[in-house]
Amino acid sequence: MTEPLLHPDRLFPAEPSIRAIARNLYETVADLPIVSPHGHTDPSWFAENSAFTDAASLFLIPDHYVLRMLRSRGIPYDALAVPRKDGAPVADPRAAWQIFCANWSLFAGTPSELWINHALATEFGIDAPLSADTADATFDLIGARLADADFRPLAILDRANVEVIATTEFALDPLDHHATIKANGLNQRIRTTYRPDDVTDPDAADFKANIEKLGAITGEDVSTWAGMIKAHANRRAHFRAHGATATDHGVPTALTADLAQAEKQALLDGALKGTLTPGEAEQFRAQMLTEMAGLSAEDGMVMQIHAGSRRATDPLLQAERGRNLGDDIPQRTDFVGGLSALLSRYGNAEHFRLIAFTLDESTYARELAPMAGYWPALMVGPPWWFHDSSNGIRRYLDAMHETAGFTNLAGFNDDTRALLSIPARHDVWRREVSGFLAKMVAEHKISQTTAHDQARWLCYDAAKTAYRIP
Amino acid sequence: MTEPLLHPDRLFPAEPSIRAIARNLYETVADLPIVSPHGHTDPSWFAENSAFTDAASLFLIPDHYVLRMLRSRGIPYDALAVPRKDGAPVADPRAAWQIFCANWSLFAGTPSELWINHALATEFGIDAPLSADTADATFDLIGARLADADFRPLAILDRANVEVIATTEFALDPLDHHATIKANGLNQRIRTTYRPDDVTDPDAADFKANIEKLGAITGEDVSTWAGMIKAHANRRAHFRAHGATATDHGVPTALTADLAQAEKQALLDGALKGTLTPGEAEQFRAQMLTEMAGLSAEDGMVMQIHAGSRRATDPLLQAERGRNLGDDIPQRTDFVGGLSALLSRYGNAEHFRLIAFTLDESTYARELAPMAGYWPALMVGPPWWFHDSSNGIRRYLDAMHETAGFTNLAGFNDDTRALLSIPARHDVWRREVSGFLAKMVAEHKISQTTAHDQARWLCYDAAKTAYRIP
Amino acid sequence: MTEPLLHPDRLFPAEPSIRAIARNLYETVADLPIVSPHGHTDPSWFAENSAFTDAASLFLIPDHYVLRMLRSRGIPYDALAVPRKDGAPVADPRAAWQIFCANWSLFAGTPSELWINHALATEFGIDAPLSADTADATFDLIGARLADADFRPLAILDRANVEVIATTEFALDPLDHHATIKANGLNQRIRTTYRPDDVTDPDAADFKANIEKLGAITGEDVSTWAGMIKAHANRRAHFRAHGATATDHGVPTALTADLAQAEKQALLDGALKGTLTPGEAEQFRAQMLTEMAGLSAEDGMVMQIHAGSRRATDPLLQAERGRNLGDDIPQRTDFVGGLSALLSRYGNAEHFRLIAFTLDESTYARELAPMAGYWPALMVGPPWWFHDSSNGIRRYLDAMHETAGFTNLAGFNDDTRALLSIPARHDVWRREVSGFLAKMVAEHKISQTTAHDQARWLCYDAAKTAYRIP
Repeated sequence: MTEPLLHPDRLFPAEPSIRAIARNLYETVADLPIVSPHGHTDPSWFAENSAFTDAASLFLIPDHYVLRMLRSRGIPYDALAVPRKDGAPVADPRAAWQIFCANWSLFAGTPSELWINHALATEFGIDAPLSADTADATFDLIGARLADADFRPLAILDRANVEVIATTEFALDPLDHHATIKANGLNQRIRTTYRPDDVTDPDAADFKANIEKLGAITGEDVSTWAGMIKAHANRRAHFRAHGATATDHGVPTALTADLAQAEKQALLDGALKGTLTPGEAEQFRAQMLTEMAGLSAEDGMVMQIHAGSRRATDPLLQAERGRNLGDDIPQRTDFVGGLSALLSRYGNAEHFRLIAFTLDESTYARELAPMAGYWPALMVGPPWWFHDSSNGIRRYLDAMHETAGFTNLAGFNDDTRALLSIPARHDVWRREVSGFLAKMVAEHKISQTTAHDQARWLCYDAAKTAYRIP
Repeated sequence: MTEPLLHPDRLFPAEPSIRAIARNLYETVADLPIVSPHGHTDPSWFAENSAFTDAASLFLIPDHYVLRMLRSRGIPYDALAVPRKDGAPVADPRAAWQIFCANWSLFAGTPSELWINHALATEFGIDAPLSADTADATFDLIGARLADADFRPLAILDRANVEVIATTEFALDPLDHHATIKANGLNQRIRTTYRPDDVTDPDAADFKANIEKLGAITGEDVSTWAGMIKAHANRRAHFRAHGATATDHGVPTALTADLAQAEKQALLDGALKGTLTPGEAEQFRAQMLTEMAGLSAEDGMVMQIHAGSRRATDPLLQAERGRNLGDDIPQRTDFVGGLSALLSRYGNAEHFRLIAFTLDESTYARELAPMAGYWPALMVGPPWWFHDSSNGIRRYLDAMHETAGFTNLAGFNDDTRALLSIPARHDVWRREVSGFLAKMVAEHKISQTTAHDQARWLCYDAAKTAYRIP
Repeated sequence: MTEPLLHPDRLFPAEPSIRAIARNLYETVADLPIVSPHGHTDPSWFAENSAFTDAASLFLIPDHYVLRMLRSRGIPYDALAVPRKDGAPVADPRAAWQIFCANWSLFAGTPSELWINHALATEFGIDAPLSADTADATFDLIGARLADADFRPLAILDRANVEVIATTEFALDPLDHHATIKANGLNQRIRTTYRPDDVTDPDAADFKANIEKLGAITGEDVSTWAGMIKAHANRRAHFRAHGATATDHGVPTALTADLAQAEKQALLDGALKGTLTPGEAEQFRAQMLTEMAGLSAEDGMVMQIHAGSRRATDPLLQAERGRNLGDDIPQRTDFVGGLSALLSRYGNAEHFRLIAFTLDESTYARELAPMAGYWPALMVGPPWWFHDSSNGIRRYLDAMHETAGFTNLAGFNDDTRALLSIPARHDVWRREVSGFLAKMVAEHKISQTTAHDQARWLCYDAAKTAYRIP
């Protein structure tokens, strides 16, 4: 096989006239700085700037995309070195890496293959597919390189030309790492994001204790609805002081509510007593989204809603190891009905901005594009999670742009926990955007000039504008 | 930018062998007469044949596609000269046009851009994109041309080679303009359509008064279900006398019902008293669809159902200005369950024809194509509203034709309120049909001969056949 | 028209570089043996090996795809020789064939056209489209050929290079034909499948009698839940003795349940008394799916769920002629919620395998691909029924492979009642797979080597592996 891991024309349409245009467009965006306004990298990396330890800990163990695919073909998480709640031993990183490499063919054509190949080639100079034969050699090579100074997290950010990156912290997070980052003068580049699911979702673990802690931290009386909202305002200001320009809300559905004061207080009372029915818990979350919109309209933080993931669907996995390990599955989501209460109240508010994300592609053309193409407050986030892939991006752009226009799209998020996938994911987006716009040029739908403008918007300006990043 | 506004190969696939076939197919349909069996043009235009006044009144103020996109980026409707309910002043047409032109780039790649460019180029000889720099000049140029005799509505119809066009009027409309049109001998060319939403939807404004007026006009006792249905039969005959071959029904869902007489009377009683619950109002609409099917089976009028738009979602817009200004959003729609009662009763009726339209593309391959591919009475309408676009048409044809066949498709509707968009929209359809069939020829799925036959069917014969237009 | 019925490049992408790769890939899979692990051919064909009688009985009368399309354009089933329940006369086969041929243009671009042309060309040497002019001649020619020894069912299997084929029988089927097949030493090649809908669906005709018969056949006390499940275990063993490696379950929704013993017994009691509400009948089916999963986890039979068809939607057709004649329509289906109970219990079970099929394409990328990409027990079946078409296969592969990977796909099923469509359908799949992988190679997403490996997997190995066929 003489095909390199990273072909220079990868992802571009094959038709020669389109490919030529795509190449030209891509050249103009390939080296733009990376703006990463939403993601899940670990702020301790940037605060402490410590070295990563080994290939498995970098590429395999924290990557739920990779873990789930291996599990789906019968490879147990013990063998992949995924820690257990009971502390029982699991495989060591080298053994896990060997299994991963031996099963590399499972990833043929997947985004994981593309992202990992990108990192292997650009960061480690590896130019052959992973395999059982080379597992030890690649484990050693990567391990050796990780010890180099230029593989510290901040060096990786520099090399990837990351202009700004946002992490995501829960409302009760002390932001110690971000305090260090700020002390190091990096808090305009490395920002936090306010994600208060720990205190807005009555089904969250330790919800009552969390609310009480919120009261303690902020000095507000969180037993009243108004006091609880003030406590949020307080935390939001604290997060802004650590660079946050946005909030984020992960919810199973897009339901919002706009209830009377007495109803809200009754929900809070029930939530603190632990007596809410599932329907009431849903109402609590729904009302909290509208409250967060109200605060955003006041303080200018950009609100993100990530709706439609059914979390933790495998009881066995939850019992053995816990969350974010691959058993979250998308579900059908109703944005037009769900967001009605919130948008009726704040959709025209001058300072309010909401960026909505979906895992239900049927909502692209049916709901989100028409809604973003009307409401001043609403933009649509990029394809999310399972849809942040070559075909996923194509389906997204195809379904979205005619009704939403390009200017109601919020550019790209990498939304990753894997540091080295950041440049890889942005590169995929830039290539797909170039290919998509090139096809439009070739079909005489837009001019070359417009294509260049929109490519830059989608690959750089949109993210800064949408997230109000200076 | 040397790209003309209207490239002769626009919308054709870029692959040279497909493009060559597409060009050939398009040549055979490009100049066919336009059949426009469903739309919302103003019958007063054709009755009075008066001149349009200015560019903004022609292209901007009545076009909710354009207004909504500008609003979505924060431009207020006051600045776009959209009239207010309270009569407070709004911008003058020239100022609104200037803002529209200055923000023209928002429309990059949208169907609005394509349609407006088509009109600018073919009707006004403008061959550069709108921009702030040329706003005054284009406003003046268009205004001057609109004063010409050959820019009167009937002249525009002639130039566009419109063989027949249908407008849409509510049940209580006196049809005065259509009476004038008839008196002028034009009622075979310019037809009305019976859209009785004003008297079939208990949630319509002034529903009770409307029903009473229906009784007064027809001399029927509309306090009984049977009398109300007779009144419809009467109005339908009146509409047929003004050229109508079809009825149209705009409903939030596709639900139909087939209730017992006593249940129907109870719904009517409640509707007249204003005591229906939302669920009962839905039942009323559902039963009325089945009643209308029954009348169609008798009088041969082709029934259209446009289902799945959640109307008037922005309370602020409704309070300030009212309906049809951009805040209608599609929602998930169930055709297989919804139409069950109606089709169980009339789906095999010899003279009955139903044309169904959806805004929920997930129903194309899942429900509508299989249903139209079985029921003798059912055909599928063209892609509607947000989906009447280059990509929308491609997705429609892709998802629909394998199961429905081409012959269960009802051809094209422009469904527009914008007179000059009629030739533009039909041209987009004809180009996309040509491109789609060309790809099938190139992949040896159909022969050239079949492609020519189907192109003509989809671009001309289907609309006349489906709508029973002589 | 000089285009042959079967162009050697049919279905391949038109872009020359992709087509060249597709041709090469196709050459490597075109002649692989056919593995047909799920379908509805008649086992009496293979037991008795009798001749088919005539063209209409072979191509028209048993093919609901063809019948429904003709009906949709107003051609009555009487004229198509579809038998009536009341025994009233219908058209003779030749007359039906004439009507079919005269309306052949209705099938332009449909999968039926492709499949039938394939059989006409490869089996009968016909190389012109069917038409009214040649109806008698083709009827005679086909009739004459069907009398030849090499048109007996087993000879057709040989010529099509069918390595293994599974039929589908209900739980109470005596398997007489399969006993003959076994006696003839063919039961490794021609296998049955256990489809117990007759005794798992309380809405099935004669449900109570069926359950009693199940008890009588197996000697189990089917009035208790445990006894009924034992009776299933017994029948499953009997089916395995006749070659079955799989079970199949046709259900309107994907709902599963995991109820307490007392609840299960109450459902069974109600089902036998005929007192279940529709909701309880749904719970019965839901629980039975989980029970079948439990038995599969024990006996290793591969479980198939075909969910989401709303059956028998036309009361007139049901009254006149009965089931499986074209009035089954897909409906929206919830897999993530529906399969939750079953997967929570058995999704990680070592010997359990579930293959899920959907008619709701919106579940491909949203639910089934993510679920199959996580659960060890779950694979996804190929595009089913209306989606087993050129475009349907493209949409399936596009939406599925990035998240599920190729290895969680179960290869191809022809799922047909029409013997001669088997090689045609597999050929379409192989061509589309080749085209799809060729595009990936041309876009440098996978290497040529990987494409070859995956083509073979998808066209041959996957079906054997997924269905545990030795």
